Amino acid sequence: MNNDYFGYRGVVADILRKINASVGDRIIVKKKDKVFEGLLMPREKLYGDKPIIVIKLDNGYNVGVRVDKFTEIYLKEKRRERKSFLRYKVKTQRSDLPKVVLLSTGGTIVSKVDYETGAVRPALSVEELTEFIPEISDIAVLDAREVLNVFSEDITPRDWESIAREIYKEMNEGVDGVVVAHGTDMMAYTAAAMAFAIRNKPVPIVFVGAQRSSDRPSSDSAFNLLSAFLTASRAPFAESVVVMHGETGDSYALAHRGVKVRKMHTSRRDAFQTINDKPLAVIKPYEKKIIIVNKIIEERNKDKEPVLENKFDEKVALIKAYPGFQVDIIHYFIDKKYHGIVIEGSGLGHITNRAVEAIRRAVEEEIPVVMTSQCLFGRIDMFVYSTGRRLIEAGVIPGNDMLPETAYVKLSWILGSKTRNLDEVKELMTTNIVGEMNPRLTIDLFPRWPHT
Amino acid sequence: MNNDYFGYRGVVADILRKINASVGDRIIVKKKDKVFEGLLMPREKLYGDKPIIVIKLDNGYNVGVRVDKFTEIYLKEKRRERKSFLRYKVKTQRSDLPKVVLLSTGGTIVSKVDYETGAVRPALSVEELTEFIPEISDIAVLDAREVLNVFSEDITPRDWESIAREIYKEMNEGVDGVVVAHGTDMMAYTAAAMAFAIRNKPVPIVFVGAQRSSDRPSSDSAFNLLSAFLTASRAPFAESVVVMHGETGDSYALAHRGVKVRKMHTSRRDAFQTINDKPLAVIKPYEKKIIIVNKIIEERNKDKEPVLENKFDEKVALIKAYPGFQVDIIHYFIDKKYHGIVIEGSGLGHITNRAVEAIRRAVEEEIPVVMTSQCLFGRIDMFVYSTGRRLIEAGVIPGNDMLPETAYVKLSWILGSKTRNLDEVKELMTTNIVGEMNPRLTIDLFPRWPHT
Repeated sequence: MNNDYFGYRGVVADILRKINASVGDRIIVKKKDKVFEGLLMPREKLYGDKPIIVIKLDNGYNVGVRVDKFTEIYLKEKRRERKSFLRYKVKTQRSDLPKVVLLSTGGTIVSKVDYETGAVRPALSVEELTEFIPEISDIAVLDAREVLNVFSEDITPRDWESIAREIYKEMNEGVDGVVVAHGTDMMAYTAAAMAFAIRNKPVPIVFVGAQRSSDRPSSDSAFNLLSAFLTASRAPFAESVVVMHGETGDSYALAHRGVKVRKMHTSRRDAFQTINDKPLAVIKPYEKKIIIVNKIIEERNKDKEPVLENKFDEKVALIKAYPGFQVDIIHYFIDKKYHGIVIEGSGLGHITNRAVEAIRRAVEEEIPVVMTSQCLFGRIDMFVYSTGRRLIEAGVIPGNDMLPETAYVKLSWILGSKTRNLDEVKELMTTNIVGEMNPRLTIDLFPRWPHT
Repeated sequence: MNNDYFGYRGVVADILRKINASVGDRIIVKKKDKVFEGLLMPREKLYGDKPIIVIKLDNGYNVGVRVDKFTEIYLKEKRRERKSFLRYKVKTQRSDLPKVVLLSTGGTIVSKVDYETGAVRPALSVEELTEFIPEISDIAVLDAREVLNVFSEDITPRDWESIAREIYKEMNEGVDGVVVAHGTDMMAYTAAAMAFAIRNKPVPIVFVGAQRSSDRPSSDSAFNLLSAFLTASRAPFAESVVVMHGETGDSYALAHRGVKVRKMHTSRRDAFQTINDKPLAVIKPYEKKIIIVNKIIEERNKDKEPVLENKFDEKVALIKAYPGFQVDIIHYFIDKKYHGIVIEGSGLGHITNRAVEAIRRAVEEEIPVVMTSQCLFGRIDMFVYSTGRRLIEAGVIPGNDMLPETAYVKLSWILGSKTRNLDEVKELMTTNIVGEMNPRLTIDLFPRWPHT
């Protein structure tokens, strides 16, 4: 590793040493008729030992450029000088702009490579955010703090309670919008939880994440964060939404209602998609445009007094129907004194008839059982087939067109914040509270699948 | 109910009585410049007391026509005469055509209204099928029998074993294709099971169902059945597929590989869609066209000797990760001596870190644990984040781009038919056997969502 220079080796390391460029410095790479300008990043492991130099462009994306004998590399600006310039800019944040707070819960979106050590660490200070996304200074006056630091797959309903409390606090302090940085895995669940936990919202709650962390080439962090800040500061709605890439390019982001959104792809930038509804808005961050494309349910209005109802019941099970489903699973949850069960059933809302008696027992023991569909798209209708009618007769609460995940969050919220009386639970579960049900499922809401 | 005539009342009942038309008779309804010809059906409850007459058109669909003073209704042909004519046609089935057998497992696709009683009953005889879909006589020589009669939500891995046995028997008797009529709820699971249970298939296995039963207006039964018979008799592949409407109209059906298909809508005709792959073929039944749009894995060849491996392990659990997931659920399945667990995890293949120790215990007790993603689209990658790496280290088997449902069926098949040795299970689970994994996930495989 004699030759190692911020992870670079061989010819690339030699050139960087020669021009005295360190990671974080602004450099220019010319290759034939192409010119790349941006910050030098540490070597990317995915390129192996290839002579590739990694630069973070001003649009926030990293590119890898292969260095050959035609490549010229120049140092434009040392890092330290630039940083002090940015500090100055931050100090003069325009006070006429909306105030937005970024609450970080963990996840990789606000991480970045530490220029000294090369390790990934949270980049949460206002200075660093502004350095990362300079356009923010024209959109909002920023504040940022960490409220939690866990992987999103480890977040529990207990965490929802504390996130809600922090958002509520910010709303009471008069912020114009809240951005919540969150790991993408379980982001939709938390966004749905906040829709219920804070009612009469004066300003929007905007969840944002990254499908690739900001230290990796082609990270989507910068574009998503900028879109989220624009939404939090300017959107005319005051709902809990997820703002993420709308398609794979940088043409637009989408604001999805938290109760109707689902992560539908393991790795794509546009993984988040609205089910059984349209997104709430199309966001074009570079044009500072927010185009509303669906009916707003909660309007932005800073005179509104937010109401905090942030208790979530952890003893709710979400179980899936499948051909080998053993009925004793339902008895297990009853025996373990669970307070509620959501079934991800089949088709119009079914589970094997063998389960009817166990479900009847649950209802008799005052445990609400809610039916949703693993089809995800479309509405439950438990009156078409006899299995559905038997389940209704046993006391199952039909979940309408709610996503199984949303029904789970809603039941946990009702049992924690509202009531455990079975009739009242049924009444609330079948009432549309924050847009979690769509009374008009039009034919165009089903996506177009590739067939040829 | 003095005025009741096959459920019809008032003016409609009066006219039908006057022309002596019974349910099942061929009638002609003229209304201004429109002419409807077809079989008189019993009154549809959904029309309430409106003066609407229901006719089954020759394309298999029911229409309701409002009767007003401009409507003329004629009797064209009594049912009994037509029926004997059809019997004659059936007797002269062309022996040069491929032989297809229809195995019915229950579900509503092969049901129809009994013309005498008005009740829905299975219509399984070759005569009745040919009466229902006259085009079949030009496609195949039919045989039909019932192998099971249960709702698809009640079908178990035990039933998969007997369905596989019946299909295998037909293949050995030299049939040119097998059509399996199946309720739509759990059809994809059974289609995946047959892909594994019968190997070296000489001819295709075609699953078909109806989103609306054939006694209801706008049933999709006839179109789907015709498409399924065409596929079973002529397709160049010998795979287990689902054949259903490709879009809401009658322009084409799709043949989806059973291991890659999922019911994605509770009620649409085109509810079945291929995930992480393209369908295998586009079917245009009226043009007798089968257009192959994906790589065929198993070719049709009647010289092939089918192999029956139809044991499925019922002690496999399919569990979903969610924020309130309690780790004791995993311990429960271990304590109950389950033989395998499939997790529908989050994102790239995660579940809360709190579950790692329980999963490690399962693996130590020789219970394979397979990871899939509730995103459905995209591929598992458990090496990106530390949670994934910890799960791999605990012994979790990554499910690649397999659907959770397919991974569940495959694990049940491996444990039942192949091996319970942990290393061998891992080897088989991560090997692509019948196209359940797609090594090339291209960008166009994600459907296009409605955004505005």
